[in-house]
Amino acid sequence: MQINYPRLLADLRQFATFGQVGSGVCRLSLTPEDQEARHWLLQKMTETGLDAQIDGIGNVYGRAKGVNKAVLIGSHTDSVPNGGWLDGAMGVLYGLEIARARLEADVQTDLGVDVISFADEEGTYRALAGSLSFCGQLSEADIEAATNQHGKSLHEALTEAGYAGRPRVTLDRHRHIAYLEGHIEQGPRLESEGKKIGVVTGIVGIRRVQVTCTGQADHAGTTPMHLRKDAGGALIKYCHDLMQRFAQVRGPDSVWNFGHVAFEPGAGNVVPSTARVLVEFRDAAETILDCMQAEIQAAAAAANGQGGVGVQATELIRISPAEMDPNLAMRIETAARGRGAPCLWMPSGAGHDAMVLTRHIPTAMLFIPSIGGRSHDTAEDTDAADICLGVEVLADTVRALAERK
Amino acid sequence: MQINYPRLLADLRQFATFGQVGSGVCRLSLTPEDQEARHWLLQKMTETGLDAQIDGIGNVYGRAKGVNKAVLIGSHTDSVPNGGWLDGAMGVLYGLEIARARLEADVQTDLGVDVISFADEEGTYRALAGSLSFCGQLSEADIEAATNQHGKSLHEALTEAGYAGRPRVTLDRHRHIAYLEGHIEQGPRLESEGKKIGVVTGIVGIRRVQVTCTGQADHAGTTPMHLRKDAGGALIKYCHDLMQRFAQVRGPDSVWNFGHVAFEPGAGNVVPSTARVLVEFRDAAETILDCMQAEIQAAAAAANGQGGVGVQATELIRISPAEMDPNLAMRIETAARGRGAPCLWMPSGAGHDAMVLTRHIPTAMLFIPSIGGRSHDTAEDTDAADICLGVEVLADTVRALAERK
Repeated sequence: MQINYPRLLADLRQFATFGQVGSGVCRLSLTPEDQEARHWLLQKMTETGLDAQIDGIGNVYGRAKGVNKAVLIGSHTDSVPNGGWLDGAMGVLYGLEIARARLEADVQTDLGVDVISFADEEGTYRALAGSLSFCGQLSEADIEAATNQHGKSLHEALTEAGYAGRPRVTLDRHRHIAYLEGHIEQGPRLESEGKKIGVVTGIVGIRRVQVTCTGQADHAGTTPMHLRKDAGGALIKYCHDLMQRFAQVRGPDSVWNFGHVAFEPGAGNVVPSTARVLVEFRDAAETILDCMQAEIQAAAAAANGQGGVGVQATELIRISPAEMDPNLAMRIETAARGRGAPCLWMPSGAGHDAMVLTRHIPTAMLFIPSIGGRSHDTAEDTDAADICLGVEVLADTVRALAERK
Repeated sequence: MQINYPRLLADLRQFATFGQVGSGVCRLSLTPEDQEARHWLLQKMTETGLDAQIDGIGNVYGRAKGVNKAVLIGSHTDSVPNGGWLDGAMGVLYGLEIARARLEADVQTDLGVDVISFADEEGTYRALAGSLSFCGQLSEADIEAATNQHGKSLHEALTEAGYAGRPRVTLDRHRHIAYLEGHIEQGPRLESEGKKIGVVTGIVGIRRVQVTCTGQADHAGTTPMHLRKDAGGALIKYCHDLMQRFAQVRGPDSVWNFGHVAFEPGAGNVVPSTARVLVEFRDAAETILDCMQAEIQAAAAAANGQGGVGVQATELIRISPAEMDPNLAMRIETAARGRGAPCLWMPSGAGHDAMVLTRHIPTAMLFIPSIGGRSHDTAEDTDAADICLGVEVLADTVRALAERK
């Protein structure tokens, strides 16, 4: 089997023309650009010799013929607004190229390569809709309920695209022995540590908590400091305290962010009556997330009532961590070593379709470096050499799986 | 001379019907409501026996007849949006009542009482426009340049009101031996300390500084903590540091406020690239303001570059403190003692027309308690007994000035 680098890179460039925005793409789920990309992919899969279809949720699935077992390789081809050209598309075209190379080489094996582009991973209507549907976790009611930010329903969008009513392809536990997803890292770790392949240990859990301080608006000139109920000052102290608490209980890969802060009424000469902060934190270990959340509550309890200000913490989002299959991850590392590629075992700080698949079949992910750590931005890019190294490591992993069977 | 409480209170209630909003008023400068109030005041002044006019900036000026010397008493009758019913109006009607009571009593004196309502103290077009004009500090070019938030010019508004082109009344240093202004405190100090009369030592200086932290937006899941340039975290640390620095250098009456904070791009899952805070601080002593501003700069210098984040402080507003005349203030205190009213010497944390007048003639201010410290809100209120005590103290101050001459 011979991976054809120029062909893979040409496919990626061609794919980036669908919804092109400068050096990036804007290919929101089920837009004309997204559909155009799906139909191009369908055609490529068919030319490759796969049994290809677009299903009732928009998944593009190319099924290897004449085999009972298959490795499923894929990702997603939709994008965020003004996103990067590689992102999910690369993982899908990795799958296409590996399937194509194996079919061209006429490899004698009972293990095929199935390729998939999961619909709406980015959540224009419903995050991870395609992989949830594939794994039987998306009901018709879920599809009815999902809408985009303009209030358009997923069902309506599927009807317009002509996909509604088609059967939905599903995971076959007897056939699909593993799911493999290649992806750009979307962060700076590989680059900053001089590594070429990220072996993903798991996908972090995400929690988001809103902390609200409630005081009283007063004239900031005429109200002495000791008579204020200053929600803004209380929030600053709270956040400062929480940063120190997080530093005590964090794991080596824990991250947190105070991404949004708002003071009301928000005038320079009025003592804030209300101050809010969004605290988001991620870790691959649920126990560490629990410790961090306990610190949020402990800090709120300590601050509540100080200076006449109430402090409350409310959980908004809770997504559990998803571990990757350790044996499959080890195979990726072995393949990387075989190519002389320095590896880093690392969690994924962002969500991926693999977090859905891993609850059903052995699943692993491979990262390649993102230049400057840029992602979800038209500036996202990766060296062509790294793209090619990534596909070779993934192809070698498939080869090893096939030989072991 | 006999102050007529029912008449004063009835005038105040009548006046509150102009632009009434619930228990408060919305009487923005040069709106129909504001003009209606001015014309009512003009008529009352005339009925009182004053030589009254509305001048070219909208000042309503009632001049005592047949005297060469006069105490000027007043304040303003415009309001902020949804402001309180007393605010400036009370100080003007204090002047009207005192002038009226003295004329009724036919007091034999060569010291008259002139009454004034200064235009646009609240700055719908130009803060303190009336008192600045009266003191010769507002040019025609200033009037041309002043606009409201909808872009309408002060000149246009004066033309529509029919005031443009009229002569502007001015301070007469030979005539005006003093300016007295009664006002609600607009804060909670008198009430919380059980005092009835605030003897104003001076009007605080105000400085406003914007502090901007500049980092880099990054994915808050995939970017490790040590590789971030987190403008939000830097701002929290900066504000926390500055609160402690301010506490070290503050005077007993210093106040400060972090009234507005903004993080950009402002999403829970994106590391803030920019974070801004408005830092406003006030004190009656310029030296303390200088010390506080030096701490802002020192904190910025200490934080700048930490964690890859730039920190810059930019001055937006600088208003110098204005001292009241100590002898005149002492006369107010003496008058208050004579009425058995417990006094508090205190700075004014808010701006007043007195801050303009005091640079030209002996000026003093008297505060009465604000219930709950509420101000610039329809909830603003003061006990009728306190309103009546305030006018008596001010009338006694005028009497003492007249007898001394």
